[in-house]
Amino acid sequence: MNSTPQDPWLLTPGPLTTSMATKEAMLHDWGSRDATFIETNQRVRDNLLKIAEAEASHVCVPVQGSGTFAVEATIATLLPRDGKALVLVNGAYGKRMVKIIEYLGRAHTALETPEDTPPSLEDLDDTLSNDADITHVLVVHCETTSGILNPIKEIADIVEKHKRHLIIDAMSAFGAIALSAKNVHFDAVMASSNKCLEGVPGMGFSIIRQSELEKCKGNAHSLSLDLYDQWVTMEDTKQWRFTPPIHVIVAFDKAMEQFFEAGGVDGRNARYSNNRKVLVDGLREMGFETLLPDHLQAPIIVTIKMPADPAFDFQTFYDRLKDQGYIIYPGKLTVAPSFRIGCIGALNETHMEGVLEVIRQTVADMGINTGAPTAA
Amino acid sequence: MNSTPQDPWLLTPGPLTTSMATKEAMLHDWGSRDATFIETNQRVRDNLLKIAEAEASHVCVPVQGSGTFAVEATIATLLPRDGKALVLVNGAYGKRMVKIIEYLGRAHTALETPEDTPPSLEDLDDTLSNDADITHVLVVHCETTSGILNPIKEIADIVEKHKRHLIIDAMSAFGAIALSAKNVHFDAVMASSNKCLEGVPGMGFSIIRQSELEKCKGNAHSLSLDLYDQWVTMEDTKQWRFTPPIHVIVAFDKAMEQFFEAGGVDGRNARYSNNRKVLVDGLREMGFETLLPDHLQAPIIVTIKMPADPAFDFQTFYDRLKDQGYIIYPGKLTVAPSFRIGCIGALNETHMEGVLEVIRQTVADMGINTGAPTAA
Repeated sequence: MNSTPQDPWLLTPGPLTTSMATKEAMLHDWGSRDATFIETNQRVRDNLLKIAEAEASHVCVPVQGSGTFAVEATIATLLPRDGKALVLVNGAYGKRMVKIIEYLGRAHTALETPEDTPPSLEDLDDTLSNDADITHVLVVHCETTSGILNPIKEIADIVEKHKRHLIIDAMSAFGAIALSAKNVHFDAVMASSNKCLEGVPGMGFSIIRQSELEKCKGNAHSLSLDLYDQWVTMEDTKQWRFTPPIHVIVAFDKAMEQFFEAGGVDGRNARYSNNRKVLVDGLREMGFETLLPDHLQAPIIVTIKMPADPAFDFQTFYDRLKDQGYIIYPGKLTVAPSFRIGCIGALNETHMEGVLEVIRQTVADMGINTGAPTAA
Repeated sequence: MNSTPQDPWLLTPGPLTTSMATKEAMLHDWGSRDATFIETNQRVRDNLLKIAEAEASHVCVPVQGSGTFAVEATIATLLPRDGKALVLVNGAYGKRMVKIIEYLGRAHTALETPEDTPPSLEDLDDTLSNDADITHVLVVHCETTSGILNPIKEIADIVEKHKRHLIIDAMSAFGAIALSAKNVHFDAVMASSNKCLEGVPGMGFSIIRQSELEKCKGNAHSLSLDLYDQWVTMEDTKQWRFTPPIHVIVAFDKAMEQFFEAGGVDGRNARYSNNRKVLVDGLREMGFETLLPDHLQAPIIVTIKMPADPAFDFQTFYDRLKDQGYIIYPGKLTVAPSFRIGCIGALNETHMEGVLEVIRQTVADMGINTGAPTAA
């Protein structure tokens, strides 16, 4: 939980606050062919498979860049050029997958629900029944647009029933919300170094079913983003195809060491869930309202409806919090004005109580009676 | 020049040895919307333009990933879908550009010379005269395959005479070998954070002529690698489109601060040239021979012909050097067996003398009379 004291706490969906031990791991240089680095890289890949309980069925293929790079690389590698994707959209990250497929020029369709509403399982079932061309279904596990948790197990069961392939963008959930290959049937799950595993940003990865990946030669549109080629080369040489982000990888390894020491997925889920509880309870005491009902609210990021009080000005509110050392996040919703506060990163309830105290002061200073939004 | 004492010195084409000040810059976390980070990012972009003396004509567009990501992103963004590329190939990185264009599915041709031979200016001139379809010429400034310095100014003049567009992969040369937009006419130059500017790996960048980039909407094959979209968004919001590799960027800024303090391109060129001189002189004293004649040898990485003495075993040699704290690099040549020793990174003549001393000991221990290769 120790970060450099002068740095603000990042209550955002990323980049996140990371531990000092994770950052200190970057105080070295390694050659990319060095045996120590190669072991570290292999451990990172093995541990990511372990987190997804996917060692028996899947392989882990890392890729340089942000999470979006891993998402694009996975879609491009797994979705055949004559395949068709069905994208379940209820936020910006679902829309981004549609945009990626538009760049790829491959067939696709979407099922969209509002940002505060999970995908309709019935519509999914019907669509797969009625469109035999659909080969792959794409969904976001936790949509950080709103913070909603999508029903992955139920979606996976329907996709499996129809014998289609499932690709899950688990960017903001991986490591904090259990997702096991043993009970959720997926072909790929993508995430990045800098979300719930609390590494620094700079690489993504994809957990891909080996038997499917073996069929994917020639699918990718891009050399850099060809995960088939990356996988074959890495299995063969144990090295990345192109200069790896060495410091990011070594920090990621260190972050995962701390992840396992703190109880793995269960431990991370417990800490983040407690962060969310402390945060939401405190905000509600001040009259603020969350966008989502509790049963849809992932312990990742909370969307708060913009207060109706005319004395509330978001930029002032944001700046005051920032001046006191807490960075929150603007809203990304189209359905309603809002802002967001994250529960993830190397933060615990002390930080949540800290930001609540600053919010209380700020609200009082601004002369706001209640955080309540305009009645819907 | 201070690195963590226990880390080996990386005499490779990258990842490189970086200074402790550069690595220590990574001991913080920043939000990507934070004003301090936004200033840092802008400074990095401005300084890169300054190094290329391109402020008046070009813009700097950074991209996550390794140098290859920047190369692919630049080609995909600048080469129109109905364009045609002529690639000058004399090593692995020229070949890689051909491979990228094959992925893109765009028209291309290549002019190939052996790895120890610069592109033929006459053939370039003839090819451009005879093929009106060619819109873009692609060339590598310093081919790290051999360490050869290609004649960029002469190539640029021919391309300009024929009114074609020039794209330069300056990955391993940028910042150490002068390349000024004021006297070399280019549309784009690509490089990365982790070569002669001595940042850590994790991002690349492209210096692109603004008047050309403005025409490039819709060219890219990939959302992640669309530098037009990246540029428009970054100009508009000052932010990266997708989570930036924050720590890498801040380290890059710190590395460039040291770069300017040490005399910019001239200072870096002088240090690396001295590294090369000390290294090559010392190796020649032991009978080793460089692949390239001195006038073609960039002060980046030196290719050494494999000694003919049957007592010489490269893996043993490599391991002995590594045990003594110096990491060298295998050869990548197809023309002859070889190995490579880099001159770049936070290293000076002390390190070159250090590795020479270890080589002397090792050669003696292995019972090798001379480093001389088989006569050609």
